[in-house]
Amino acid sequence: MKRTFEIDPWKVITHELNPEDKRLQESMTSIGNEYMGMRGMFEEKYSGDSHQGIYLGGVWYPDKTRVGWWKIGYPEYFGKVPNAIDFISVDIKINGESIDLAKDSFSDFELCLDMKRGILSRSFIVEKDGHKIEVKSERFVSIAFKELYANKLTFTNLSNESVKIEVQSLINADVYNEDSNYGEQFWGVLNKEVADKTGRLVGQTVENNFGTPRFTVEMAMSHETELSAAKSENEEKYIANNFEGTIEPDQTVSFEKRVIVTTSRDYDTDEALDEATTNLMNKAGEQSYDQLVKAQEDAWAERWTKSDITIDGDEAAQQGIRFNLFQLFSTYYGNDARLNIGPKGFTGEKYGGATYWDTEAFCLPVYLGTSDPKVSENLLMYRYNQLPAAFHNAQQQGLDGALYPMVTFNGVECHNEWEITFEEIHRNSDIAYAIYNYAKTTGDNTYALHEGSEVLVAIARFWADRVHFSERNDKYMIHGVTGADEYQNNVDNNWYTNATAKWELKYTLEVLEEVSEEQAKKLAVSDEEKAKWQDIVDKMYLPEDKELGIFVQHDGFLDKEITLDENNNPINKVPADELPINQHWSWDKILRSPYIKQADVLQAMWYFMDDFTEEQKKRNFDFYEPLTVHESSLSAPIYAIMAADLRYQEKSVELYERTARLDLDNYNNDTKDGLHITAMSGGWLAIVQGFAGMRVNDGQLQFKPFVPQAWNGYNFRLNFRDRLLEIDVTKENTEIKLLKGEPLTIKLNGEDVEVK
Amino acid sequence: MKRTFEIDPWKVITHELNPEDKRLQESMTSIGNEYMGMRGMFEEKYSGDSHQGIYLGGVWYPDKTRVGWWKIGYPEYFGKVPNAIDFISVDIKINGESIDLAKDSFSDFELCLDMKRGILSRSFIVEKDGHKIEVKSERFVSIAFKELYANKLTFTNLSNESVKIEVQSLINADVYNEDSNYGEQFWGVLNKEVADKTGRLVGQTVENNFGTPRFTVEMAMSHETELSAAKSENEEKYIANNFEGTIEPDQTVSFEKRVIVTTSRDYDTDEALDEATTNLMNKAGEQSYDQLVKAQEDAWAERWTKSDITIDGDEAAQQGIRFNLFQLFSTYYGNDARLNIGPKGFTGEKYGGATYWDTEAFCLPVYLGTSDPKVSENLLMYRYNQLPAAFHNAQQQGLDGALYPMVTFNGVECHNEWEITFEEIHRNSDIAYAIYNYAKTTGDNTYALHEGSEVLVAIARFWADRVHFSERNDKYMIHGVTGADEYQNNVDNNWYTNATAKWELKYTLEVLEEVSEEQAKKLAVSDEEKAKWQDIVDKMYLPEDKELGIFVQHDGFLDKEITLDENNNPINKVPADELPINQHWSWDKILRSPYIKQADVLQAMWYFMDDFTEEQKKRNFDFYEPLTVHESSLSAPIYAIMAADLRYQEKSVELYERTARLDLDNYNNDTKDGLHITAMSGGWLAIVQGFAGMRVNDGQLQFKPFVPQAWNGYNFRLNFRDRLLEIDVTKENTEIKLLKGEPLTIKLNGEDVEVK
Repeated sequence: MKRTFEIDPWKVITHELNPEDKRLQESMTSIGNEYMGMRGMFEEKYSGDSHQGIYLGGVWYPDKTRVGWWKIGYPEYFGKVPNAIDFISVDIKINGESIDLAKDSFSDFELCLDMKRGILSRSFIVEKDGHKIEVKSERFVSIAFKELYANKLTFTNLSNESVKIEVQSLINADVYNEDSNYGEQFWGVLNKEVADKTGRLVGQTVENNFGTPRFTVEMAMSHETELSAAKSENEEKYIANNFEGTIEPDQTVSFEKRVIVTTSRDYDTDEALDEATTNLMNKAGEQSYDQLVKAQEDAWAERWTKSDITIDGDEAAQQGIRFNLFQLFSTYYGNDARLNIGPKGFTGEKYGGATYWDTEAFCLPVYLGTSDPKVSENLLMYRYNQLPAAFHNAQQQGLDGALYPMVTFNGVECHNEWEITFEEIHRNSDIAYAIYNYAKTTGDNTYALHEGSEVLVAIARFWADRVHFSERNDKYMIHGVTGADEYQNNVDNNWYTNATAKWELKYTLEVLEEVSEEQAKKLAVSDEEKAKWQDIVDKMYLPEDKELGIFVQHDGFLDKEITLDENNNPINKVPADELPINQHWSWDKILRSPYIKQADVLQAMWYFMDDFTEEQKKRNFDFYEPLTVHESSLSAPIYAIMAADLRYQEKSVELYERTARLDLDNYNNDTKDGLHITAMSGGWLAIVQGFAGMRVNDGQLQFKPFVPQAWNGYNFRLNFRDRLLEIDVTKENTEIKLLKGEPLTIKLNGEDVEVK
Repeated sequence: MKRTFEIDPWKVITHELNPEDKRLQESMTSIGNEYMGMRGMFEEKYSGDSHQGIYLGGVWYPDKTRVGWWKIGYPEYFGKVPNAIDFISVDIKINGESIDLAKDSFSDFELCLDMKRGILSRSFIVEKDGHKIEVKSERFVSIAFKELYANKLTFTNLSNESVKIEVQSLINADVYNEDSNYGEQFWGVLNKEVADKTGRLVGQTVENNFGTPRFTVEMAMSHETELSAAKSENEEKYIANNFEGTIEPDQTVSFEKRVIVTTSRDYDTDEALDEATTNLMNKAGEQSYDQLVKAQEDAWAERWTKSDITIDGDEAAQQGIRFNLFQLFSTYYGNDARLNIGPKGFTGEKYGGATYWDTEAFCLPVYLGTSDPKVSENLLMYRYNQLPAAFHNAQQQGLDGALYPMVTFNGVECHNEWEITFEEIHRNSDIAYAIYNYAKTTGDNTYALHEGSEVLVAIARFWADRVHFSERNDKYMIHGVTGADEYQNNVDNNWYTNATAKWELKYTLEVLEEVSEEQAKKLAVSDEEKAKWQDIVDKMYLPEDKELGIFVQHDGFLDKEITLDENNNPINKVPADELPINQHWSWDKILRSPYIKQADVLQAMWYFMDDFTEEQKKRNFDFYEPLTVHESSLSAPIYAIMAADLRYQEKSVELYERTARLDLDNYNNDTKDGLHITAMSGGWLAIVQGFAGMRVNDGQLQFKPFVPQAWNGYNFRLNFRDRLLEIDVTKENTEIKLLKGEPLTIKLNGEDVEVK
């Protein structure tokens, strides 16, 4: 745990610059607009350790897979997110020397991400050649104008002599990827041109061996400044516009850079790309910098109106939840059904911008509660559109139906670890659950009965083929899987996988009863198939230990080295100095230990929370919680909700803090690699589903709130079936206001309440 | 299955050249002398598909490991065997055009590996420019002069016009590796020189990032021919001696090439390497080609005297067993304790020249029976010398004691698949078993009580740390392992692993009772440790199914999709057209299926064959055999021995054939990648331990022979405790002759017999 930023309700702000925390700071000050994004590295030179990272939504590269011994069913390629062509670098020279905070003396440093406005700013006073210069920078990627990046710099001469300033503004394709496994280059330059204050560069991802499309990207820059244009540069891998001038004592000079980024994802031909870039550059030129900022502020204000959560009495918690929502929305806001939510969003390369099951399991509920249904529906459409690729993935394993990928850019599995790729197949049920969850929450069955039913049937066919019948046990089983808990892999009969597969088959049979005749014809599920599915539902093996009163995570789990107390709960504990175990223990030791990375049995219990008795929830929570090390950022929120449900308030709050401030406090000691974007859902889940006890049962919205002891109260907005509600929870009572839409009856602490 | 060579008792011979079988032919005609070896590619140009492969014993390269997500305990580097600098290529031009059998018309083709003499020869008549030329080639790597490669070519002009001939003889460092994962180059050139008929090239393996030694290799060539020397070439990556002349009608011209290969493995400095090469070249120069051939023939004759097996009545079987022994001895004959037996020896790159557990489990018994004890002792010393690296490997996993590598060149684990690397740990017991087996067979405890005891204690410490105690079961267990059967990995309580770990601890405790006081002091095993080991021996969990009367391969194995017949034996069968399953099924399907790659439970039963009842052996064989697909070349011999023991003669013979002619008949459809060198032990094991029922119990040699129905009889030599025996088995009786050494009493069919 390391807190490098100050506590502030709306800002991620610091007045310190420590070289050893540079990467951490860069991750924390990432900005994005779903279309593109970047880490918080400086625009000007910085010769210390830093991770330059700019990423474009949906732009990826299939690298060849390298393994020990190749086997059938391994993915053909390994998808990577290429670090984009750098369009933000601006070299600033004072009297001929570049500003470089890794070397220069400086004071009055401030770095601030304003989450309310979506603007990253920075200021400092640097000493160059005996002169003090104040530098201010402000930048954003616009959520009102997706192709636009804007950066405004100002320089004030605080010395009593004039200084010479030179500014070199770049678009540079000489970029290396920084992944755990290589330092390669993924961009070639197709075209370039420069004028005095403008320039454009067209790049293309390098060739690949797998026939997936190469991406063409065009970046155009323009500048506004009091400085004079100097000779531009047009080199092999970069272009630069140069500016120079003199700053008199006390004078302030400003420098503004705008970049338009377009890609072949949106334009078919080079000509169309070029034309679009020109038009967009012109469009941006019609507005002043302040107007562009205003549009950004307004757009963010609209998002916050629908989603803000205020916490009374705990600024750290307040900052946490806003950081969560800000970063989640910066990564995805449902404007493009071809995009999804990468675990690191635009903030790093590790796990990159690929799509995981995190989206359906953790993020979808947040979007359902905080934004228009269209945003969530686009997440569902993403999977529907990738159904052909999911059929391909199953076929690669010799299986019927559809297997959604563990890691993907285009729907085809592109991560190569067999124990993950074709074993962590619970994702198929998670994706089905999202269809159910959407219908249940919105009350709208349209998707489920049309596109959704195709997805459900395809997944059901997969499950029906993937289970096997064990004669000896007279049960259907699922062998060779990895649950959500990746610290135990290639196990047999993971309860979570078995339970959700059974549910998926059951739900699909239910949906089939409701689809139109036309749709049923399209789905072409035979009576034989249905009978088989029903048989699996009836005879699915679900490991359980009656004596302990728990669902057993998988076969053999209880044979591990587990010591029980008098209540039959484990007393095993990892020594504090060996946490996180994935940074201290060998994989061998982790696999054999009873320690659990993230909610597994409890993940499925959360999905169907109200189907279990209080006793079942308690027994399972009490057994699994002490064994869980929460080394996935997606673990704590689920346990927080479960703890809240059991009224383990202290535990629930502890887990909330771990979730909401995971990156702000660098709990897992890995935030330097990028933010845990999909886990940004955790704070919202813990507050809304946890503390407030929000549920939707039989179409009715329900709450059973409590206020964490250290808080005075909290207040959140909720989008529910064409209504915007405000729920205000204090220690005394809960007030629910209808801000928009028709009155409705909700259940509050078990009582029906009319909200008008 | 594909038989591309003719049946012949001493030869691997064919009169056909089919381009699609070229790689297969190259594998089959590989030659080696433990120090170096090569595939049977042609010396002259061949523009068709071919796998040029020359390898040097102990020369390897550590490549960087690339994985999905890195975890602690994964090996630092991935060891590869580099394809050596090519010293055999000879381009032959007739009237200016290169001979190239991929393009030219030719007749009278013969390719012949003479196993008796260790010589590969080839002849054909090729038509070039309207002229018929007969070409003959003969080559060998000398087992009497390890650094020497010799090649003799003769050209006879069968046309009625004279032809011009040009011969270019090369040493060429421009070589690409051909592994499943890359096509890279591993050689740089340090030095070169050429004269008229001689030349030398010094190469070095490229730099690596892991601090392991780079290898320097010097190759020097000289030539004898009636042709005149033309201008030599000294290019960036190769050198060439050129020759030219005219061949008159009916005239025969000969061309002889000798190459000396030395490496930095034997010489510390470049100067020493240079000097040694010169001396060796001079030494070779003192002998005529015929003398060099004679020395080769004599040396092979000596090996055959000690080891030959003759089979009366089945030439295919005869050819099989000789091919086995020839290839095994070509790979290793115990002259250098730093070398070992790679699964593909010098015949391919896949699995390369690395050391596996195959050596101890399968090859050692063959050497014990066919050669001097020194050969076997060197195999044991190899592991003793690598003990420090084995400590390192265990430490990488956070474990006590020593973990011998799954794949290695220097003792450090260098293969990266976690399910193999740190899970297939039965190898530790296999290596301990070799110590026991050596002592038991030779009657010599010296190694076991000295170096061996250090290895045993180090392995015992590993096991004591690697097991865990399951309170619930009051048993020690071993979770997270892969047995010999890699088609079921990351399993719990693999019977083979648990049983052999238990045995290892027990044997180590026994050895500790016998070691000298001095050695005991060195080993420093505390009473507490001994007590712990004894406790593990007493409480080790060994999965068993009383009802089926079998040892269970691992927890959950019986929950797989297995259908039993009325005798409780599985009736599962893989359709013939889906075999081998590893070329037809996804890894996912294989892992979940009940099909077994190679002897697993039966491997351990074989080790301790006489500790089990007839009923136990029968029940386990009958249960596991139908499920076993024998897709490791190391499977069939073990089942053959067990079948012979149970007098399932037909099954035993079927399995012998599969073993002994595995490559000759290309059973697994992968011989083109190289031969299954360590499996060359299988034929001998099946005949000697199987058909002849050879055992050593309480120091006594025992036989219980039968003759396969299709054979008239068989005869084999056996080296046993300073004696050379000849065992002659016919359908009528068994005759045992003492060819060398003192008389002894053996047990034949249960009766004591004095052999004089």
